[in-house]
Amino acid sequence: MIGIKKIEWVSNYMPLLNYLQKNYKGVLDGIKITMAIHLEAKTAYLAITLKRLGAEVFVTGCNPLSTQDDVAEALKDFGIIVHAKRTNDEKNYYENLNKVLDYNPDLILDDGADLSVIVHTERKELLKNLKGISEETTTGVRRIKNLEKSGILSVPVIAVNNARMKYLFDNRYGTGQSTWDSIMRNTNTLIAGKNVVVAGYGWCGRGIAMRAKALGANVIITEVDPVKALEALMDGYRVMKMSEASKIADIVVTSTGMKDVVKYEDIVNMKDGVILANAGHFNVEIPVDELEKNAEFVFEARPNVKGYKINGKNIFLIGEGRLVNLAAADGHPIEIMDISFALQTLSLIYLKKNHGKLENKVYGYPEELDIEVADLKLKSLGIEIDVLNENQREYMKGF
Amino acid sequence: MIGIKKIEWVSNYMPLLNYLQKNYKGVLDGIKITMAIHLEAKTAYLAITLKRLGAEVFVTGCNPLSTQDDVAEALKDFGIIVHAKRTNDEKNYYENLNKVLDYNPDLILDDGADLSVIVHTERKELLKNLKGISEETTTGVRRIKNLEKSGILSVPVIAVNNARMKYLFDNRYGTGQSTWDSIMRNTNTLIAGKNVVVAGYGWCGRGIAMRAKALGANVIITEVDPVKALEALMDGYRVMKMSEASKIADIVVTSTGMKDVVKYEDIVNMKDGVILANAGHFNVEIPVDELEKNAEFVFEARPNVKGYKINGKNIFLIGEGRLVNLAAADGHPIEIMDISFALQTLSLIYLKKNHGKLENKVYGYPEELDIEVADLKLKSLGIEIDVLNENQREYMKGF
Amino acid sequence: MIGIKKIEWVSNYMPLLNYLQKNYKGVLDGIKITMAIHLEAKTAYLAITLKRLGAEVFVTGCNPLSTQDDVAEALKDFGIIVHAKRTNDEKNYYENLNKVLDYNPDLILDDGADLSVIVHTERKELLKNLKGISEETTTGVRRIKNLEKSGILSVPVIAVNNARMKYLFDNRYGTGQSTWDSIMRNTNTLIAGKNVVVAGYGWCGRGIAMRAKALGANVIITEVDPVKALEALMDGYRVMKMSEASKIADIVVTSTGMKDVVKYEDIVNMKDGVILANAGHFNVEIPVDELEKNAEFVFEARPNVKGYKINGKNIFLIGEGRLVNLAAADGHPIEIMDISFALQTLSLIYLKKNHGKLENKVYGYPEELDIEVADLKLKSLGIEIDVLNENQREYMKGF
Amino acid sequence: MIGIKKIEWVSNYMPLLNYLQKNYKGVLDGIKITMAIHLEAKTAYLAITLKRLGAEVFVTGCNPLSTQDDVAEALKDFGIIVHAKRTNDEKNYYENLNKVLDYNPDLILDDGADLSVIVHTERKELLKNLKGISEETTTGVRRIKNLEKSGILSVPVIAVNNARMKYLFDNRYGTGQSTWDSIMRNTNTLIAGKNVVVAGYGWCGRGIAMRAKALGANVIITEVDPVKALEALMDGYRVMKMSEASKIADIVVTSTGMKDVVKYEDIVNMKDGVILANAGHFNVEIPVDELEKNAEFVFEARPNVKGYKINGKNIFLIGEGRLVNLAAADGHPIEIMDISFALQTLSLIYLKKNHGKLENKVYGYPEELDIEVADLKLKSLGIEIDVLNENQREYMKGF
Repeated sequence: MIGIKKIEWVSNYMPLLNYLQKNYKGVLDGIKITMAIHLEAKTAYLAITLKRLGAEVFVTGCNPLSTQDDVAEALKDFGIIVHAKRTNDEKNYYENLNKVLDYNPDLILDDGADLSVIVHTERKELLKNLKGISEETTTGVRRIKNLEKSGILSVPVIAVNNARMKYLFDNRYGTGQSTWDSIMRNTNTLIAGKNVVVAGYGWCGRGIAMRAKALGANVIITEVDPVKALEALMDGYRVMKMSEASKIADIVVTSTGMKDVVKYEDIVNMKDGVILANAGHFNVEIPVDELEKNAEFVFEARPNVKGYKINGKNIFLIGEGRLVNLAAADGHPIEIMDISFALQTLSLIYLKKNHGKLENKVYGYPEELDIEVADLKLKSLGIEIDVLNENQREYMKGF
Repeated sequence: MIGIKKIEWVSNYMPLLNYLQKNYKGVLDGIKITMAIHLEAKTAYLAITLKRLGAEVFVTGCNPLSTQDDVAEALKDFGIIVHAKRTNDEKNYYENLNKVLDYNPDLILDDGADLSVIVHTERKELLKNLKGISEETTTGVRRIKNLEKSGILSVPVIAVNNARMKYLFDNRYGTGQSTWDSIMRNTNTLIAGKNVVVAGYGWCGRGIAMRAKALGANVIITEVDPVKALEALMDGYRVMKMSEASKIADIVVTSTGMKDVVKYEDIVNMKDGVILANAGHFNVEIPVDELEKNAEFVFEARPNVKGYKINGKNIFLIGEGRLVNLAAADGHPIEIMDISFALQTLSLIYLKKNHGKLENKVYGYPEELDIEVADLKLKSLGIEIDVLNENQREYMKGF
Repeated sequence: MIGIKKIEWVSNYMPLLNYLQKNYKGVLDGIKITMAIHLEAKTAYLAITLKRLGAEVFVTGCNPLSTQDDVAEALKDFGIIVHAKRTNDEKNYYENLNKVLDYNPDLILDDGADLSVIVHTERKELLKNLKGISEETTTGVRRIKNLEKSGILSVPVIAVNNARMKYLFDNRYGTGQSTWDSIMRNTNTLIAGKNVVVAGYGWCGRGIAMRAKALGANVIITEVDPVKALEALMDGYRVMKMSEASKIADIVVTSTGMKDVVKYEDIVNMKDGVILANAGHFNVEIPVDELEKNAEFVFEARPNVKGYKINGKNIFLIGEGRLVNLAAADGHPIEIMDISFALQTLSLIYLKKNHGKLENKVYGYPEELDIEVADLKLKSLGIEIDVLNENQREYMKGF
Repeated sequence: MIGIKKIEWVSNYMPLLNYLQKNYKGVLDGIKITMAIHLEAKTAYLAITLKRLGAEVFVTGCNPLSTQDDVAEALKDFGIIVHAKRTNDEKNYYENLNKVLDYNPDLILDDGADLSVIVHTERKELLKNLKGISEETTTGVRRIKNLEKSGILSVPVIAVNNARMKYLFDNRYGTGQSTWDSIMRNTNTLIAGKNVVVAGYGWCGRGIAMRAKALGANVIITEVDPVKALEALMDGYRVMKMSEASKIADIVVTSTGMKDVVKYEDIVNMKDGVILANAGHFNVEIPVDELEKNAEFVFEARPNVKGYKINGKNIFLIGEGRLVNLAAADGHPIEIMDISFALQTLSLIYLKKNHGKLENKVYGYPEELDIEVADLKLKSLGIEIDVLNENQREYMKGF
């Protein structure tokens, strides 16, 4: 019941999916789609949208802790097959990934590339029917490109993450807001005046940093790319190595897509009461295992917050080091996901339509679909923009 | 059990109350303190602090919806008398105010002045033993000053709200952060790109506006004071009448201390899906009664969010129009309340020490205590600042 | 000729003075006004306004370096008596102050209180005819209050600086913008990514800090008031002692009203190429004398910028340590001065009207005139704001 | 003399060019370089740097109004050939372009592509000796790419603008600061509270918008790209068509690279006193010709500011519609140009070294040189950043 309410709520703020439901009926008739997603109300509404466009839909989670069970339950009422449970049990998580693959999908909608990697390694028999993959994240795209480099990629893949309407919005405004929503609601601590260390100054990292600054924090950036480090500096942040920044941090947020960004020896030097959170896709950025192993004791400090006693100091970790906005809150704001999921929906339709015409490689996001989504969003907001006239178009061609 | 955890959690981030507990033991011996507060973990820790300084403490809520029952329960284990329950029942709320007054307090710690008004109108017999009142809020100070103007104020009152360490911090950084924490967690909607209307550009209002802008909103201010209206304009906001602003609002937050700031005829003209919230002390700023009466139907849209169907449009109200950061979230950030409650504690000690020497009037907050709290806070952060030397002090006196 | 152009230019952006010229004709008939001002186009237009309202006007500068000679020249064409010259010669500066006093004024318009101090100490004979003083600045008000404390104040004084429309606007938005305008135009150096140290977090200091942050700087605040230091911290700045901040500074701006804010031993530790500027009223905040005395050599690095070679490092000082926005640029933005000078004009009219009814003390700015100016400014912008209705006014009185 | 001083001044803040002068001596021996640049102190120091690395250098301006004559004069003392004069005479401007080409250069350093277009159209005889072109701007790269598309490009070209260290810094932080520096110094008007319309939300446009907001303006963006329009919206700006935005504008800044961005019919509807400025490369964005032709009269309002009387209203244009930061101020901040010119220098060295190995096409900027410049800049600031370890490098390759 409450799951249904959550889905109804998000439908209020998803004008693009509502538009697609109304205008693209039947376009996915006869197509089986297996999707791995952070299963909460917004992704549920995406699944419902695909169903309403004609597809058979099979859903599982893409991260053990990000599934909301009431929503998973509600989804079944819409005729969608769901294998997903909020859990800490990685084995159960992988079983579910395999279960939704058992339906032998035509298309995969992936988030982080777990499904994509499985079908290309352990379950190659599924490649025969598979017509394409649409991948959501930076991390997933990196993994699939590595499949491509290894020469084993066997279907066309669209990197939805590479749509401008995705990485410029989802990664920046989405992660920026939802990361702080989660940290604030789970800790009730003040952000203003705090030393906030953000590891990584990619699109996600700069969203997180921008909002931290906006909330009054004194932000410090760590980076491995010197150009991004200088951008951070010019944006008014301090730039340091993690081994220095960690000593003065009140809050540390990682968002790099890389493992071991914070090292255990950094944590040992942190201040009493420091708060750690990860906003990257995988729980590899903060060394949770070492915290568990080395702490004098471990305690639940609040729901979603674990305390580790180390050298007599309290080190707090939100959401077990899994991506903090989903493991310990409601994920990205609704309107952001509405955009991302309109991109996803058009991507799946595109893969279906162009079946047979595409190579087995990673494609960027089709420019015309990117513009279509942007135009739809502007229209839903009632905003008109300028258009180049004939003279101006000519001018652009001149030298 | 969970109530205890919440209190333990906040004690991690309240260095000033911890300092006072350690260094002011016994200073309130023999004193009975009745307090009306938003009963959650931080105020609980204030009650515990007063108890540890020697006082007998009697606690009730200061707003029907802001009491957290698990915390109320936990407080009893600390030897504190509690009469409070989260409720919508105003009668029950007033009964509890009276119950904590039955203990015939020496001092009252008030938040919004409900206790103060009762002892000066309905229960004047308590004035005999009462030695002073310490009031927390702008609204409460206004009400007590009206008691003073009416000639019926019978005890000295300290306006804690008038401390610089209070109104410059609690009202601005506290309300600013916690209002958006609440709106974000209760709606999961995007703030960036939204038209956010903030009614009132006092300390609270500018905190709310500043954070909204920082989250990417396009902020519109409504005001009745032309000077504040111009400040808002120079701060980069648009300034309008509510009757105009309401037509383009995506989110409306009131924070004026005044009633009927949003009028029903404004609401009728709002957009489908608009979100309303109040951050002022009393639930009088948004016309909840008229919404309830006139809506085609009323529904629970999400926990803490009510939907009103009006002219076929959904109008959403968070926390029933009560102050949104407390009725639908965890209130101000911990560190902010640590400052405010250090001020409160010193205020109560001051009222005790100076009993007999003060007039029955509303006092501003003693400057030396204000500075003491600021110095303690800087010390807890390890920050040193400059000090004027003898020559400089002389210079200040010259002409 | 060019002086006239400058005055014509500012008249485009001074709607309030234009309004007063049109609607208050003759109101200062028969009054002699002596004024000490930063003599540039905007103050010239104030002098012209007073003249057009009927006064005889006598003008000198209030700071040796802030007089623009072409404007001074142009002013004479409007029938105004001017004794002022851009100079480094303090003796000449004081001679001019005395010359404009020779006219035996009815009213003094002062900026920094030099005229006020002279008439109360060296030229008491002028007090007989003097009906009042209207003082512009924080520094001036402090000096005149010290006259008051010493028991020698002999005329009513209106502290224009204390008008909300003054200190909330002039000191913050005016000084904030014009200080950076001056530093940027005189150095052409990048602000983004720089360590900018702002000494003093009063209204001026926070304006300067806010704009520095906005331009991408990493701002560090020094303060002597612990409450302001904490505000700075919560606003996202670092807070340090000057002896620490100076070591990492790229740019240092003082704005405290206090002398010796930067000490010579701080300067010795600064980085090669550091830029120093003062935005406070008097040139006492940076130890210019010691720089001149101790430098290995002194050179003109650019117009308005002096270089001091100290320990092999270049230390650059803008505008000789005099207030940087006037000594080395065009002062506050026009619209800001339009507001301040509307306040000044109404203040002088008020002093004339209420002659005989006022005590010889420092008055705050009359609330009704403050509101009048705010209303006029809103009207000039075409902005309407809300007005409390009868019910709401009643509500404000309740308890 | 003053030209020399200006050059000495900038050498204080150009650590990268200083580094290259010291460490790359002789690397350009025997090479003739013709350059068209905005001739002021910073570009002069680039020319000097190239000379000190061994090249013969021939300099002209790249925009009629951006040449500073005293700097041009000073440059000759360094043994550099200069043909440039600040002028409004387009014929003279083109003559000078041709004069510096007469030296039959090995390499061209271009800014806006005027030299490049001339050698590919009117003076093809020079292509024989020409080994490559290094182009600075977005506009120039677009023009040369059009040469490439037309099949007439005959030398390898490096698009310096495409270096991350260029477009992320120069276009954003450089244009952002210097545009407002120019507008403020030339008008002395207040930015806070103004409606500022920025046409174009590319890297330059967002720099301009970001700083305008930071200075307290209410910013409105016009765009033709719907994705950028939505980014602007999410960044908190309003988005409109120019025909609407122009009606409420106080200040309009164009930065699109397109012609006729503001149309004469937009100007007719603007407010009295509106200020227009262009920050794009060519003076085609604002219809200066139509202003000149249609105005009731035209007047010099201030140095660098022309007034056009249209329908009884004053329309003010800064710097004749040429790029405002150079035509009416000192161009980008020094440190920004230090980065850009380090990129240019390395680009020219690269073209020399790889002569014979490159195709006749437009190359992006070599990644390794981009990183080299970033590393040098970080080093000059004393900032250390993290480095991936072996395990982490492995992780990046996995799937």
